[in-house]
Amino acid sequence: MTYCLAIKVDEGLVFASDSRTHGGVDNINVYSKMHTFTVSKDHVFVLLSAGNLATTQAVINTIERDLSAKKGKENLASVDYMFDAAHYVGKVSRSIQKEYHVVGQQSSASFGASFILGGQLKGFPPELFLIYPEGNYISVSEENPFVQIGEAKYGKPILDRIVCPPLPLSDAARCALVSIDSTIRSNLSVGPPIELLYYKKDSYGLKRHRVFHENDEYLISLKEAWNVGLHTVFDSLPRFDWES
Amino acid sequence: MTYCLAIKVDEGLVFASDSRTHGGVDNINVYSKMHTFTVSKDHVFVLLSAGNLATTQAVINTIERDLSAKKGKENLASVDYMFDAAHYVGKVSRSIQKEYHVVGQQSSASFGASFILGGQLKGFPPELFLIYPEGNYISVSEENPFVQIGEAKYGKPILDRIVCPPLPLSDAARCALVSIDSTIRSNLSVGPPIELLYYKKDSYGLKRHRVFHENDEYLISLKEAWNVGLHTVFDSLPRFDWES
Repeated sequence: MTYCLAIKVDEGLVFASDSRTHGGVDNINVYSKMHTFTVSKDHVFVLLSAGNLATTQAVINTIERDLSAKKGKENLASVDYMFDAAHYVGKVSRSIQKEYHVVGQQSSASFGASFILGGQLKGFPPELFLIYPEGNYISVSEENPFVQIGEAKYGKPILDRIVCPPLPLSDAARCALVSIDSTIRSNLSVGPPIELLYYKKDSYGLKRHRVFHENDEYLISLKEAWNVGLHTVFDSLPRFDWES
Repeated sequence: MTYCLAIKVDEGLVFASDSRTHGGVDNINVYSKMHTFTVSKDHVFVLLSAGNLATTQAVINTIERDLSAKKGKENLASVDYMFDAAHYVGKVSRSIQKEYHVVGQQSSASFGASFILGGQLKGFPPELFLIYPEGNYISVSEENPFVQIGEAKYGKPILDRIVCPPLPLSDAARCALVSIDSTIRSNLSVGPPIELLYYKKDSYGLKRHRVFHENDEYLISLKEAWNVGLHTVFDSLPRFDWES
């Protein structure tokens, strides 16, 4: 499994992903699920992937090949709107899954993959899409300013409480780390290192990218502070009437 | 869906359940999922149920009918060990599901149900079992002192952090409420009222049972304190190096 999420706040976008993949418990590997595309100086994309690793790798490779082709081919450079980019990624993903479909029906393997696509095109605000295995896609909203793929449930409650559009970008990044850390604690199929990228609106730069390994000093201090803090809050909760 | 959980600590057992059932989003109802059986003065059981409502109701009815029969019939009064009781409940559940199986294969309905069975028999410590839809069952352990059925993922991180055998019984009860509240916030299929029962070891009494409706004063104060506390802890988390 996998856990990736992205948050859209007024200041920009945050992307975060774990790095564990597995084909059964005896085949666990570390793969990055965060892919960046700087198509031009005002045309940037970040893609997070979950699902079948062969499918997600083929999708990334195809996107890169299409970008190199350049001669009138539909690609991330040719799109005029962000939703065109989401539509394109969905189409690539669907066509790759289709190629293996017949074999797939004879085996028990699933070739499905989900993606989060975010970025900004000149003249538009930053945008964020969730692309389903079928290739269709949805965008975030003011009321629902984050998207998740993979093992999404464990880390959702903290996002539901904290994330809102006015949240500062660094806080959104911290919240994403807390969400992934909670998931790692509760589910073996999600694991470090954690990748984090935060994109400041109108910067068209994807340089603020950090990889937090298990022994990263900041990550350890964050986990410790969160854990101690939760215990303190828990200990101070109101007592039941029968306790007094 | 449903969310029920039970915790075993040194002082005793805690049971908690939500009350929402649904057959599709246009058929939402309130049903209790917590059932108690005081078989004799030193022979008590609590059963939490999740899954197909027709199945769980039939299981409860069958258990009660078997208890009334009394003449040499296997029932909750006839068992000598807690795992015999778990085995009996599993067998009842399986036989009820089997009755509808042929029809079930022609429809898309699932007749499966899961249960949490806890209680205490004279001469033994309190025990806690998770009974799967197939009727087999597992017991909790020192390392894993809680069990969950239904929408278990949202509320698991807080249990993973807080619950351990030395935890006082009232704290375990509070943690169960927090776990259910987090789930209700993040998932529409889980809803109030929340039922809570806490069983003090060797008391053989099931009287400490409370129903928290949405507007319950204590529940509101608990939710508020937890939410404010989480925000305070979040705001005090260590800053990234790029923020200084």
